[in-house]
Amino acid sequence: MSSNTTSELLYVIKIGGNIVDNPVLLTQCLKAFSGIKGKAILVHGGGKLATQLAKDLNVPQEMVEGRRITDAETLKIVTMVYAGLINKNIVAQLQSLGVQAMGLSGVDANLIKAHKRVHASIDYGFVGDVDEVNISMIDNLLQQNTSIVIAPITHDGNGQLLNTNADTIAQSIATAMSAKYAVHLIYGFEKEGVLLDVNNPNSVIQHINKEKYQNLKDQQLIFEGMIPKMDNAFLALDKGVQSVMIGMAEKMNELINGIAGTTITQS
Amino acid sequence: MSSNTTSELLYVIKIGGNIVDNPVLLTQCLKAFSGIKGKAILVHGGGKLATQLAKDLNVPQEMVEGRRITDAETLKIVTMVYAGLINKNIVAQLQSLGVQAMGLSGVDANLIKAHKRVHASIDYGFVGDVDEVNISMIDNLLQQNTSIVIAPITHDGNGQLLNTNADTIAQSIATAMSAKYAVHLIYGFEKEGVLLDVNNPNSVIQHINKEKYQNLKDQQLIFEGMIPKMDNAFLALDKGVQSVMIGMAEKMNELINGIAGTTITQS
Repeated sequence: MSSNTTSELLYVIKIGGNIVDNPVLLTQCLKAFSGIKGKAILVHGGGKLATQLAKDLNVPQEMVEGRRITDAETLKIVTMVYAGLINKNIVAQLQSLGVQAMGLSGVDANLIKAHKRVHASIDYGFVGDVDEVNISMIDNLLQQNTSIVIAPITHDGNGQLLNTNADTIAQSIATAMSAKYAVHLIYGFEKEGVLLDVNNPNSVIQHINKEKYQNLKDQQLIFEGMIPKMDNAFLALDKGVQSVMIGMAEKMNELINGIAGTTITQS
Repeated sequence: MSSNTTSELLYVIKIGGNIVDNPVLLTQCLKAFSGIKGKAILVHGGGKLATQLAKDLNVPQEMVEGRRITDAETLKIVTMVYAGLINKNIVAQLQSLGVQAMGLSGVDANLIKAHKRVHASIDYGFVGDVDEVNISMIDNLLQQNTSIVIAPITHDGNGQLLNTNADTIAQSIATAMSAKYAVHLIYGFEKEGVLLDVNNPNSVIQHINKEKYQNLKDQQLIFEGMIPKMDNAFLALDKGVQSVMIGMAEKMNELINGIAGTTITQS
């Protein structure tokens, strides 16, 4: 599937915990989001609020390779924090900024169907891997000029909620919607972008395509931690997403306007 | 405004805490909901889960005349429990029953705008009284055969979430939607209906209209606790709702089919 440059623009923007946890940065980011001309979807992560609530409730948290093991009590906590507290506060702020925002999780209108992760050696608990995105429902809402705010909770279709990685949700939605839209996928995170020198925030590589990525990798100039993110970006581009941008979430306005961060395209 | 008997049917069903707290009764109730032929909206209350979470988090709860005083910490709790945990679990169950359910709060898509309650002597905190229902958005979703599941959290349009009584939300939506639909408003609660003898569950009054209500009141045959519910029901009927049914939530199937509980109509 290749992107169609005459299609309507759609921004799929993912913001992570570092923004969600910081009210000032969050407001700044939502203001940038409210300035988008055209269709937009915001996917938010969880941040430290879920970890804090688990601590307050004496629910022990176990992380394996950076992933939260989601037992039944933890699932309740992340459902409350992600789909309740964070999602509704973001939507209320966006509404106050004049955005017709609607907060949904993957279970709502069967937006994102998933299955419980099966792993040979690790039991992740109620963690879901995405199977299917409800393209027509998302399209319907976008066509009514609704901006969708998505909490990273999905379901298996049999009544079971599942905790799903927000980066993956953003990518799944971006690739699914690229069947109809020219999708720009933006990942707001804590760094300026892809850096040539990981210790120098001024060394942002402004544009990377497949060829340049291969060259940089061959020269071992891509920081190891960035490789999964980059590989995921190229996967999204292969599936029809028009561009992937990675940059500092607090510079969301500049990211949206393509004047900060790293833009990744196929060619 | 008078109801139009040729309009499309819409069921607005409110279930309270006693059902939400009981997984078996909740499933039974959702099965009945899934059997509705036509458009349907489910409004759910909170139940004891919010009270329990407040206790677990050492957030003291204050009730004044049966209403929860909602300070900032309590608002976080009810947002998490109502809009997160309860709402998403109900939607996941309805999806598993084949209902294209979408869980929303009043803030989502600006569904229910409210204002912070002003009271001469009591500070209710972040409690909202309903100002306006977004009729066209609800209608859009219903026309896509989406069943809306509403958590009783609203907003003031300036970024502030507000805790709002679920009975009031059900009534506000029912009256607003009666501009287009023939609305049946059903309140599922813990009694069989309006009883002639409050101690005898077999003394349900099957049908009450304004005249009969006045007669029963004159004879002091209406239990005092029912009077606000009845007055609210007649208010909804005055504003165009076609019928109001009150009965036991676990008999939702019979309520929907009009063979249990008390049906209240204007004439």
